[in-house]
Amino acid sequence: MSVEVPSRRDIAAAADTVSASIRETPVVTLEADDLALSGEPVSLKLEQLQHTGSFKPRGAFNRALTVGEPPAGLIAASGGNHGLAVAHVARSRRVHAEIFVPETVPPIKLSAIRQLGAEVTLAGPTYDDARQACEARAAETGALLIHAYDQPDVMAGAGTVGLEFEKQVPDLDTLLVAVGGGGLIGGMAAWYGPDVRVVGVEPEGCPTMAAALAAGEPVAVQVGGLAVDSLGARELGTHAFASISKHGVEAVLVAEAAIRDAQALLWDRLRIVAEPGGATALAALAAGAYVAQPGERVGVVICGANTDPSTIRR
Amino acid sequence: MSVEVPSRRDIAAAADTVSASIRETPVVTLEADDLALSGEPVSLKLEQLQHTGSFKPRGAFNRALTVGEPPAGLIAASGGNHGLAVAHVARSRRVHAEIFVPETVPPIKLSAIRQLGAEVTLAGPTYDDARQACEARAAETGALLIHAYDQPDVMAGAGTVGLEFEKQVPDLDTLLVAVGGGGLIGGMAAWYGPDVRVVGVEPEGCPTMAAALAAGEPVAVQVGGLAVDSLGARELGTHAFASISKHGVEAVLVAEAAIRDAQALLWDRLRIVAEPGGATALAALAAGAYVAQPGERVGVVICGANTDPSTIRR
Repeated sequence: MSVEVPSRRDIAAAADTVSASIRETPVVTLEADDLALSGEPVSLKLEQLQHTGSFKPRGAFNRALTVGEPPAGLIAASGGNHGLAVAHVARSRRVHAEIFVPETVPPIKLSAIRQLGAEVTLAGPTYDDARQACEARAAETGALLIHAYDQPDVMAGAGTVGLEFEKQVPDLDTLLVAVGGGGLIGGMAAWYGPDVRVVGVEPEGCPTMAAALAAGEPVAVQVGGLAVDSLGARELGTHAFASISKHGVEAVLVAEAAIRDAQALLWDRLRIVAEPGGATALAALAAGAYVAQPGERVGVVICGANTDPSTIRR
Repeated sequence: MSVEVPSRRDIAAAADTVSASIRETPVVTLEADDLALSGEPVSLKLEQLQHTGSFKPRGAFNRALTVGEPPAGLIAASGGNHGLAVAHVARSRRVHAEIFVPETVPPIKLSAIRQLGAEVTLAGPTYDDARQACEARAAETGALLIHAYDQPDVMAGAGTVGLEFEKQVPDLDTLLVAVGGGGLIGGMAAWYGPDVRVVGVEPEGCPTMAAALAAGEPVAVQVGGLAVDSLGARELGTHAFASISKHGVEAVLVAEAAIRDAQALLWDRLRIVAEPGGATALAALAAGAYVAQPGERVGVVICGANTDPSTIRR
């Protein structure tokens, strides 16, 4: 597999490909003191309002529509959100979908995937187990494998979040983006390039990108903690690593408590429900793990909402 | 008290007055089939993302900033959302606030008003009891009374929802708006005028506007049901009645079950939490109480989110 980083042109093409299938998600801009910060307003891209409650359909639609579906349909491994997205794409394209999930899948995601009509297999304790089972099955059936992050089409689709955000708020200096396997951060970095600072935020329990940057290549790490179902890839994707290396993406780690606090803050100040992974990027700003300079305009992607809202501290 | 209907100029002036204090709330546009409907896309104005989780700060800021606060500060009666808004205004203006609420106030609203530092009095079983206690107290203290709906400044502030929505989605044919005492519908009708259809949606348990239209004037009705804390004014405001009469606003009633279904739909399809009153306008469309004609572009205001999210059917 050759390693490719999507260009801005690739991402613009992806936006054309998926535009009829995805929602243009809105942005809300907050005064800094709404977040108990000083400085410039902060813009939140409300990508949790996307179909299936996360950004994942952008990449899944881009791959399915670009490659086309074989008779066996679509197949994917996922901690939950990507499986929901592929199930949604399959339903809208009227093809079959098989989804492999680890046992960490939250009930809200598992039941939603099944409601969309996909065939679901619980395959071991980690995302990696599900990924291996999925690859073996894809080789048997010939279904189109849509990777949760490590395919150029998927990353280009995720990059359309950046294309939209730039159109909506052209003057951002810095983007904060949560990182799991790196599809979203890789796509955002590919869109924004080196002129805009792109910062990858990871829970301390899932330091996949930080480890890759430290090692100079993707390496397997232990993953766990409350965002593991959405950010729990053990190893950064090769395409993501190429993109973040090319574009100089920085890594920031946040504690579990900061993620819970960011979920509570989103509910308290905005009546937004975000899952742990969806609140992780904001946690870096709210907890001071990322400190904006005077005059710096920061954008944050709220990338998922698939959680039981009763789990959010109120 | 003379009855006044705000002009578009009054609403534009209100927008200037409050612009530094309120959030411009975003819009998300859905394909009709996301709502299990056919026809044109439907645009939702996400006003539940406003400060304090409802549209109410728009009117409260407009009145406080237009009139100015006396030494005794602000005073208001409210089912909850307006009290939250006045408490928020008082805090941001660093003045005292006294809020009178009925015993129907949901715990989430009561605790949030207190957290904002306002003095809260529980005053009887209905909003009307709270209103009477509030008026008596205002006469004693000289505090600025900010009515929950029946003041021209408050209605003009609410009308800024329309000004923003028109700027964001210029081609709407029809607006669906929930009705309690009529501040929001009166302001929206005043902004849009007769060229755009403005439809007021009420729960069957709170038919305040429908009764006023039937009687030819505001009349007291029995109110109850699950949206009573936000839409439970017993009688339409006089200014609201003047505005809806002038602009030909229509009334639609929805059943309790349709409101619950609309709350569940907003969570299922968009991961949005809306309180019963906040989902009432959408309920009219989703349940078929309002049926759009072919080619008709409908906008819906999601006007409040102050509910315990664990109460939403999932």
